[in-house]
Amino acid sequence: MNVFLGIDWGGTYIKAGIVNSDGKIIKKINYASDKLKDKDSFIKEIESLVNKFKQFNIQGIGIGVPGMLNVEEGFIYYLPNIPGWENYPLKDILQKKLKLPVFIDNDANVFALAESRCGAGKGKTRGIFLTLGTGLGGAVILDNKILKGKTSSGELGHVPVSLSGMQCGCGGKGCIETYVGNSYLLKRYRKLKKNKTKVKDVKEIFQRGLSGEKEALTVWKEFSQSLGKFLSGMINIFNPEVIIFGGGVSGAFKLFKPYVWQTIKQQAMWTQLDGLKLVRAKLKNPGIIGAALLAKEKL
Amino acid sequence: MNVFLGIDWGGTYIKAGIVNSDGKIIKKINYASDKLKDKDSFIKEIESLVNKFKQFNIQGIGIGVPGMLNVEEGFIYYLPNIPGWENYPLKDILQKKLKLPVFIDNDANVFALAESRCGAGKGKTRGIFLTLGTGLGGAVILDNKILKGKTSSGELGHVPVSLSGMQCGCGGKGCIETYVGNSYLLKRYRKLKKNKTKVKDVKEIFQRGLSGEKEALTVWKEFSQSLGKFLSGMINIFNPEVIIFGGGVSGAFKLFKPYVWQTIKQQAMWTQLDGLKLVRAKLKNPGIIGAALLAKEKL
Repeated sequence: MNVFLGIDWGGTYIKAGIVNSDGKIIKKINYASDKLKDKDSFIKEIESLVNKFKQFNIQGIGIGVPGMLNVEEGFIYYLPNIPGWENYPLKDILQKKLKLPVFIDNDANVFALAESRCGAGKGKTRGIFLTLGTGLGGAVILDNKILKGKTSSGELGHVPVSLSGMQCGCGGKGCIETYVGNSYLLKRYRKLKKNKTKVKDVKEIFQRGLSGEKEALTVWKEFSQSLGKFLSGMINIFNPEVIIFGGGVSGAFKLFKPYVWQTIKQQAMWTQLDGLKLVRAKLKNPGIIGAALLAKEKL
Repeated sequence: MNVFLGIDWGGTYIKAGIVNSDGKIIKKINYASDKLKDKDSFIKEIESLVNKFKQFNIQGIGIGVPGMLNVEEGFIYYLPNIPGWENYPLKDILQKKLKLPVFIDNDANVFALAESRCGAGKGKTRGIFLTLGTGLGGAVILDNKILKGKTSSGELGHVPVSLSGMQCGCGGKGCIETYVGNSYLLKRYRKLKKNKTKVKDVKEIFQRGLSGEKEALTVWKEFSQSLGKFLSGMINIFNPEVIIFGGGVSGAFKLFKPYVWQTIKQQAMWTQLDGLKLVRAKLKNPGIIGAALLAKEKL
């Protein structure tokens, strides 16, 4: 049986799996270490992975990378959270070492590919895919293909929704990520509580919202309005059939979905809304599955 | 010789031409009348056009329409500036009357197709196309094809750049169109001049800017900052090779280009900027040429 090795690389962890042509994981490995931030250690770990899986007939390897890539040539421009990887030709180096075809894309595109083929976007040819977490990862499927340029592109988190706005990690100001990312939500909640309440993480704000706490609900309403406003622009551009919400913060989907819809109905052109669905992502390991499917579809 | 009839319909005028496969206009007609707002008069005018051109071997007809369309089925949802056309199956009605294949798309997409094939976007596979005028028309070329959904889509003018913002004609608030459209520029200029100067049109503000008038330059700087901010989002999504500026206000291109670039360099991700060019549209009759090429490429 022909299979593909899908690698979800988060900087300090690797989740890898042998995946068949239907996107089903046959065997899976998780490995976490700060050493993986180092180029040599990372390459060695991938070599050892391929060895561990040598009983399988691996046709190709796909890797989801947390950063900005040149997908045409397969190199990393930079990783926002890990220094030292600037202009690193990951694809070429691995192909030479492993004697197997290697394909790379950014994590958001890989997520979208998985959900599009095997998850909540199955059967849809136009979709918008968000991963809500520390930042806002985004990807677009058009004509059933991932939107890419010479670079990984589809950087929806870095679409400005304000002409001024807060400083973003990308260097710009007012990007939607600065209004819906974890750190902003925590800061906003603490401010609303006048710094009198300790809150561990966004999940706690979600739970407090579910139990009806006023300030927590305010955070989710504001979050939804910003997200809905941003998504209205994307809807006017792409006329998507589906918008899929993944990532940690999508745990609050039930709470924010009605507010997001409300804003979209006020903001987006009605001609663009026919048949549109907002749904939560479905897959447990989209990073592994999407990376493997990246290899499968390129081969 | 096989030719195509391209029709640029502006609501109160028709510009039509016989166009060959290379996008060259062989024969051209202009006609202006308020009657063209009426469905029956419009259809009759198209019939008479086809008759006038009956010596040509017309393979198909393309029409650029100033409104929101369902391009999959070829009907008009509505025309923002002309009432009475709601849900009108233009394609079917014309095909039955004329016994020729008819294709419709919105005016911005038709403009983009023309500039992409024969104008400033020739040879580029990814481009963003703007028509700057009363509103902001927008279109995207990806993989050398116009970005479309079930609807005409690519509605770049209706991407919000503010979480609150001014009321837009589309029903939303804070769309980029409300910051760069003619009426806003005129209003802003008058306000800066404390209503003490009469100004006829945006062209006059352009000329005053060229001669160094402070308030006029402020208008163009603000315009450029808003446009640059918006375009940075589009650049982060699409990684375009070229951004093309057409429409009446593009007369001020030389004046606003350096300021737009400045904002883009501050706002957009640098990985997306490699090789990007900002250029002015080239064609004299993009509406006719693009409409004809729409028919050519669909056939």
